[in-house]
Amino acid sequence: MNFHTIHHCRQCGTSVEHRVPDDGDTKTRAVCPACGTIHYQNPLNVVGTVPHRDDRVLLCKRNIEPRRGFWTLPAGFMELGESTAEGAMRETREEAGAEIELEGLFTLLNVVRVGQVHFYYRARMLSERLDPGPETMEARLFSEDEIPWDEIAFRTVKETLERFFDDRRRGAFGIHAGDLD
Amino acid sequence: MNFHTIHHCRQCGTSVEHRVPDDGDTKTRAVCPACGTIHYQNPLNVVGTVPHRDDRVLLCKRNIEPRRGFWTLPAGFMELGESTAEGAMRETREEAGAEIELEGLFTLLNVVRVGQVHFYYRARMLSERLDPGPETMEARLFSEDEIPWDEIAFRTVKETLERFFDDRRRGAFGIHAGDLD
Repeated sequence: MNFHTIHHCRQCGTSVEHRVPDDGDTKTRAVCPACGTIHYQNPLNVVGTVPHRDDRVLLCKRNIEPRRGFWTLPAGFMELGESTAEGAMRETREEAGAEIELEGLFTLLNVVRVGQVHFYYRARMLSERLDPGPETMEARLFSEDEIPWDEIAFRTVKETLERFFDDRRRGAFGIHAGDLD
Repeated sequence: MNFHTIHHCRQCGTSVEHRVPDDGDTKTRAVCPACGTIHYQNPLNVVGTVPHRDDRVLLCKRNIEPRRGFWTLPAGFMELGESTAEGAMRETREEAGAEIELEGLFTLLNVVRVGQVHFYYRARMLSERLDPGPETMEARLFSEDEIPWDEIAFRTVKETLERFFDDRRRGAFGIHAGDLD
């Protein structure tokens, strides 16, 4: 898990105890012995797009860790105040500066080991203009046989790209839900 | 939002500042002036099922707030260490004690106002045996014309039930993704 242990209470700053709360819960939580606050940690959503134009797909070369220098689809952590679709559009704007029109949800992938759920939407690119942000070294379009398969940053990205080209070949896009180890 | 303001640092207990971090972020976060920890708050996933048998659907009468006494599909917050599907099965076991076989994802509903994403899976009930947990007053099967529409606990549940009976009438179940205000 990429989650940090909670040492102090968010409400009052007291050192927390790690125990099963007395409210009928069955899991160990960080419980404040002073004010009683129970701190929950839950999975995070990662939202992104598969921006495509003609037979090509847009990838971004990461300028930040983890996996700096590897290629990814535009994606990032979903924020409060936005939907999964809005978050996917925001990340596409921030990381690639691409003008897109969102299509349907395409993959929904659980990565239990790191406590994440990844959502990728298909997105039609409205132009080839790009304006990558500071998190991206370079953004460009790749046809299927140009994809740098050995330099893909994350397995959810690889899985999503494979499904995309498979469905494109079949001529019909589904919604693919599944788990990655 | 049902999120609590962060007052103290999770790592060291110091009072946090609420400001945009210096790392290129654009949003206000709780930042610790002593140890530098940045605290993020993100949407939560709620996972559940539509347990069905013959032409009926299983609902649970809530024994806890919010919406105590109202009817819901079995659902709850996704935990670390489980997938969306595993969480949906766990909640169905905990709240109704139903024996189910999970089918496909059915609805994926954003509720931006409260910072939640709700996932409902279709689930075939393997028997009519039920064993409701402490969070449930009563669990029972309802045919479409018996559903207590005015006593449904949450809008995502109402939306999911409506879609379920509509798709059933059509004879084909889709995956319905959308937003509720």
